[in-house]
Amino acid sequence: MDPQFDPALDLLIERRIDAPPGALWACWTRPELMEQWFCPVPWKMTDIALDLRPGGHFRGVIRGPAGEAMPNVGCYLEVVTERRLVWTDALAGGFRPKAEPFMTGIITFEPVPGGTLYRGVALHANAEARAKHEAMGFHEGWGKATDQLAALARTL
Amino acid sequence: MDPQFDPALDLLIERRIDAPPGALWACWTRPELMEQWFCPVPWKMTDIALDLRPGGHFRGVIRGPAGEAMPNVGCYLEVVTERRLVWTDALAGGFRPKAEPFMTGIITFEPVPGGTLYRGVALHANAEARAKHEAMGFHEGWGKATDQLAALARTL
Repeated sequence: MDPQFDPALDLLIERRIDAPPGALWACWTRPELMEQWFCPVPWKMTDIALDLRPGGHFRGVIRGPAGEAMPNVGCYLEVVTERRLVWTDALAGGFRPKAEPFMTGIITFEPVPGGTLYRGVALHANAEARAKHEAMGFHEGWGKATDQLAALARTL
Repeated sequence: MDPQFDPALDLLIERRIDAPPGALWACWTRPELMEQWFCPVPWKMTDIALDLRPGGHFRGVIRGPAGEAMPNVGCYLEVVTERRLVWTDALAGGFRPKAEPFMTGIITFEPVPGGTLYRGVALHANAEARAKHEAMGFHEGWGKATDQLAALARTL
């Protein structure tokens, strides 16, 4: 478990996936793949632009079935190929602060026999932000997206 | 100039200082030195704890002459010895988001004949945050602190 994880403040999804770390990494870092799994259907993320280095931007537009369109902007903090990806929405590209921070995501890909132990941690500033994220449907949303991620990774 | 600098959003201090980058770096990274210059007198920062690596914490307490005591917490983002130091108060140690982000600081130390071209950039989320920082006395405060920094570095 990531040493930063605090169950009072943070949320976690953990899965064994029968695909190798490299396939999951590709799904997280290639826009044309990320578009296929990042949001639970019928939602989708489009217009994805990734600058995969500490300080690089993460940008996309989350689109809903009724025409909703919400920009999603963040900044990569750590990029360890096929092992660990950390980004935050507290910053935009170039480490510029954002007005409304919400979370830092830590995704780890641990090789295990037959596949990958996949973990996603969402770090929050306080218990209120954790509760809000949980109420927004963290477990269902990240769970469905992870099902989509696993299904796509198996095809690579 | 740092490519992130945007004059509509950000603030800058730039000085030629007749001390080498290594001496200025020491003043920025050794708590017992930082305590001596970081706040314009009669203010002072105490209880400084620095974990100098991306994701490491920056902590101190800013103390005023009337007994004011304000915690100052941030996170290092880039640490390039004697050349470049980047941190933000949008995150705490371990990249955990904070509830009230304000700025990212980028300090660069460029060796020049006779000393260092020293630059401090404060990145903000928007023009309002920039204006607030300027009204808080950015130029006077960072200016006085930089005078103190230069005087201390010359003694090292």
